[in-house]
Amino acid sequence: MVGNQEVIRRLAKYRNVMRKMKALGLVKVFSDNLADACGVSASLVRKDFSMFNITGNKRGGYRIDDVVARLNVLLGKDKKQKIVIIGCGKLGQALMNHNGFPRVGIRVVAAFDSDPRVLDAEAPIPIFHIKRIREFIDANKIKVAALTVPEPSAQSMVETLKKTCCSGVINFSPIVLKSDEDFLIHNINIEQEIENLFYNIHFAEIHSAKTDEK
Amino acid sequence: MVGNQEVIRRLAKYRNVMRKMKALGLVKVFSDNLADACGVSASLVRKDFSMFNITGNKRGGYRIDDVVARLNVLLGKDKKQKIVIIGCGKLGQALMNHNGFPRVGIRVVAAFDSDPRVLDAEAPIPIFHIKRIREFIDANKIKVAALTVPEPSAQSMVETLKKTCCSGVINFSPIVLKSDEDFLIHNINIEQEIENLFYNIHFAEIHSAKTDEK
Repeated sequence: MVGNQEVIRRLAKYRNVMRKMKALGLVKVFSDNLADACGVSASLVRKDFSMFNITGNKRGGYRIDDVVARLNVLLGKDKKQKIVIIGCGKLGQALMNHNGFPRVGIRVVAAFDSDPRVLDAEAPIPIFHIKRIREFIDANKIKVAALTVPEPSAQSMVETLKKTCCSGVINFSPIVLKSDEDFLIHNINIEQEIENLFYNIHFAEIHSAKTDEK
Repeated sequence: MVGNQEVIRRLAKYRNVMRKMKALGLVKVFSDNLADACGVSASLVRKDFSMFNITGNKRGGYRIDDVVARLNVLLGKDKKQKIVIIGCGKLGQALMNHNGFPRVGIRVVAAFDSDPRVLDAEAPIPIFHIKRIREFIDANKIKVAALTVPEPSAQSMVETLKKTCCSGVINFSPIVLKSDEDFLIHNINIEQEIENLFYNIHFAEIHSAKTDEK
């Protein structure tokens, strides 16, 4: 399962590039062009495609419509991608209003919190009490939850979710949670990303200082 | 500059693991242990260390204190890591209160917005008008900004920042901004991360369905 991640990322990239090509009016694409746009080799594109029985012909390349349709099925993009948000603090509220979701077909269907003051079952995105989470997720067949709870609650919330039909979490709380065989966790560690940015800048400065000395 | 990123990530990992080892009371570490903890080969650990003149001896391994001190300098961790937040919507406010920052030494020193109603120069983290951004960044030698502005403003804000001493941005707006030689941009694309999670879950389901058939 984990070994597939690189392949999946590439398939998603191919799909995105081809959708943009289609928007430009293109009908067919060669593996060479796709390879350039995705920063991989043409032989890798062909290998990925043949692994999933996506075929083209040498003269005409691949038909964009056919390949995108096939990738949509492979990636499950033909299904609705509903998520719930757990934790309605500032970050949870930001996610509820995140305008990047609609364009990729992700829909926030509900949010959950333990604070009675923020609950609102009538809102466009209803906010329910956290005690209703298991019932809601199973009834609505939710596969993915975004976790924006405080750090001490994060792991126990994952244990609760594992008892539902939910299969994965994107975790924003500042603690690294671990995936297991049947439950995927993707950690977004904001402070670590910013640290890395500092490190890269620091390295670049050292490097340019050395270049100046020469 | 870009080619260094993998090395920098590893150095940061070594540092984190060694700080945890130190907290456990360890004084020395062998490249084998470090390799296991970081998921790399022992020879790569030794190669990385020798590249930066970090030396140990075969019998006693590396002295944790010495290596961490050296890594701190290499990573610029001995300097203060001050950031500003640009855009005080929900996400910007969430970042202002993010409790993962203090423990890694990142300090949010100010925030900026164009809406006069949210400005507050007297707050613990002051919120200034966006027109003061260039002056503030240069006066306070800020190297990194977190960008949580709406998508249409993101690119022009980067152009403004390029005219200051700021060298990098962590971008949360749902548009992919590109780094160049002198200005690093790290995009956190929340919807793409969630899409990838859906893809991985979908693949895992297909895979387990196939296994069941057998």
